[in-house]
Amino acid sequence: MSAVNLTHLYSKIAAAAQPSAIREICKLIDRPEMKSLAGGWPDPAVFPGKEISSIAADQLIQRADQVLQYGTTEGLAELRQELAQLARQRHGIECSPEQILITHGSAQAMDLACRVLIDPADVILVGLPTYFGGTGAIKACGGEVIGVPVDNTGMNTDRLADILKQMADNGKRIKGIYVIPNFQNPTGVTLSLKRRKILLTLAESHDLVIFEDDPYGELRYEGRPLPALMSLDTSGRVIHMRSMSKIFAPGMRIGWVVGQPEMIRKMVIAKQFVDCATNTLAQYVLLEFIRSRLLTKTINHNIKHYRRKRDYMLQQLKKHFSRKVKWNRPAGGFFIFIRLPEYLDATELLTEAVDNNVAFVAGAPFYIDGSGQNTFRLSYSQASKADIAAGVKALGAMIKQRLKT
Amino acid sequence: MSAVNLTHLYSKIAAAAQPSAIREICKLIDRPEMKSLAGGWPDPAVFPGKEISSIAADQLIQRADQVLQYGTTEGLAELRQELAQLARQRHGIECSPEQILITHGSAQAMDLACRVLIDPADVILVGLPTYFGGTGAIKACGGEVIGVPVDNTGMNTDRLADILKQMADNGKRIKGIYVIPNFQNPTGVTLSLKRRKILLTLAESHDLVIFEDDPYGELRYEGRPLPALMSLDTSGRVIHMRSMSKIFAPGMRIGWVVGQPEMIRKMVIAKQFVDCATNTLAQYVLLEFIRSRLLTKTINHNIKHYRRKRDYMLQQLKKHFSRKVKWNRPAGGFFIFIRLPEYLDATELLTEAVDNNVAFVAGAPFYIDGSGQNTFRLSYSQASKADIAAGVKALGAMIKQRLKT
Repeated sequence: MSAVNLTHLYSKIAAAAQPSAIREICKLIDRPEMKSLAGGWPDPAVFPGKEISSIAADQLIQRADQVLQYGTTEGLAELRQELAQLARQRHGIECSPEQILITHGSAQAMDLACRVLIDPADVILVGLPTYFGGTGAIKACGGEVIGVPVDNTGMNTDRLADILKQMADNGKRIKGIYVIPNFQNPTGVTLSLKRRKILLTLAESHDLVIFEDDPYGELRYEGRPLPALMSLDTSGRVIHMRSMSKIFAPGMRIGWVVGQPEMIRKMVIAKQFVDCATNTLAQYVLLEFIRSRLLTKTINHNIKHYRRKRDYMLQQLKKHFSRKVKWNRPAGGFFIFIRLPEYLDATELLTEAVDNNVAFVAGAPFYIDGSGQNTFRLSYSQASKADIAAGVKALGAMIKQRLKT
Repeated sequence: MSAVNLTHLYSKIAAAAQPSAIREICKLIDRPEMKSLAGGWPDPAVFPGKEISSIAADQLIQRADQVLQYGTTEGLAELRQELAQLARQRHGIECSPEQILITHGSAQAMDLACRVLIDPADVILVGLPTYFGGTGAIKACGGEVIGVPVDNTGMNTDRLADILKQMADNGKRIKGIYVIPNFQNPTGVTLSLKRRKILLTLAESHDLVIFEDDPYGELRYEGRPLPALMSLDTSGRVIHMRSMSKIFAPGMRIGWVVGQPEMIRKMVIAKQFVDCATNTLAQYVLLEFIRSRLLTKTINHNIKHYRRKRDYMLQQLKKHFSRKVKWNRPAGGFFIFIRLPEYLDATELLTEAVDNNVAFVAGAPFYIDGSGQNTFRLSYSQASKADIAAGVKALGAMIKQRLKT
């Protein structure tokens, strides 16, 4: 096929779209000798492979006619029932199964929420920095993003209030706020209770929706969990998105979203034309996994596992990194965020690191305003102890070489 | 939660979106006593449940760390290799694995193709009638649809040429054509070879893309297969979409799409923000299913099974339907399309039928111009022989009652 060039036929959004920085880096560093602290994928060591294998085989033998058939777009009724109960018990969210839609990962929950709520040129406020999957989904619907600084207790609500006021004064409408309240990607920080309340008040007074993305919330290693934004919300402005990727199995691609019944109905209609329904086998396996209490067991096991890895990386950082470099101690999740002195460039460091078989994710792609050149993200989730030790040591040495004395 | 009304915040597309007529009817008729000739779902009797169960268990035991982990957005490399071979051997399409993207069903292939190619107000030509999943995906990207009549040999290319000329004369740009070449949903008709060639010539002269959606092509019950549009295409204007739902298992949600490398790359970027990647387990199971030659075996088995069901429905139609009612003999796929005399309304008939525990899909939702009131679609794929007999008999009697003597 000698294909003619058809790029002039691409949609404006596709023509402008850039690949996800993480997915692209994963391809670059896919070689066995690489000590990767880049990808935020879960550790296969904690995958409940045997349990899933036995449940899947059972389900396929007992009821192949259901398990292999199309499901409803909303998702398996029994599973939505279980998830409503989880929402209540684990996250303080009172909701009915009709308020739940099961999706192919929480990424799809975000995509559908954006489709239902974002018109081209609508503005969504996002953390500075924030996960670029979130901003990518917003932009894919033609939405625009404006950054709100994130500090040690999450999105800075003073700055948020200023931006909202300023935008309102200029007659510019804001549609919503995208926030990862727990152990945010990439910073690992958690939004404080006080700020959660302020955020809801601001959403109310400015007529906004809140996209609450909580893929890591179950993995808290210390301290008490904070209430979900949705559990504090009295007006139904929060769209609450959860992932099963970090506590069950990412390859099963199961996420779910809770919202107002009418909004969920609109998301269901959108999904009908997006992929008809979520993988049925994965839903039945998860249902049995929850019913047999394996989910709770797996979560508890994962917490211990990842806490050890976090502690180990923190210890290695203390050992090998200069005191001129700053980082945080995340209370959960997968990430530690590194701040180099402002004159150092983490993207340049990354090039040197990859040449030396060490990888991380530079911070810049997480900053929609192009700042954050001196930052980068380390993940302890997937790397072995040996790779964490060797990777942090090598990075520490490379940074020291670059530091002004 | 006493939710405030947020409908004023919905996107224009979501506010206007209507649920898929088929998915909605499926909810209405979901009772055991219903003799449904409505849904075009595959027959669970031919699901390879045991084979899939054994492969899935094997894969989960042998390599849970891969099978349960995120995959690349493009899809499993080994599977894309197998699919490229299938494309060559079964469909005469020469392509490399880099030209293939694995999706959550062919519905997602269509959604991603639309995202990459359709800007709001772009016009796509579609069959009159056609599958509303296709038009739904186009509209979800803000696209507009114009109908081209479908007759016994598919989309009428004379009319297509007229419409294209007329639009060009009016300075209106057309972006592409959506076509289901084999055993089209809902009519069951197949686009003739002559028309396939004309369609490609028109696409070339009018600078269009062709969305070739072929979910039923493998299920041909008689006659020789016609070449895929993509196999005849010398300029790379065809986006070829295939489904595993009718020949493997719909609940596994696996489809794939072949296109120009650059276009596939854009679709991959879109998918990164849509759902990151396709279910990994389903991909590994399908890979083994193909490698152990079970796919070919299943296809051959399915052909025999559905051919018998088609023949049985045709026989029952001949027995119970008035000669004033017209229908076709599909050479493959799942559907027979019924044309009542023009003065009869199939939607009214459906209401009476559902009251009497018989269901079908009225034709009107397949006609984007609101015509087709006297038509309806029957499916023999999922119904038992007993339901086909009883359903067709009951419908025949209801229609006779309504016919003018």
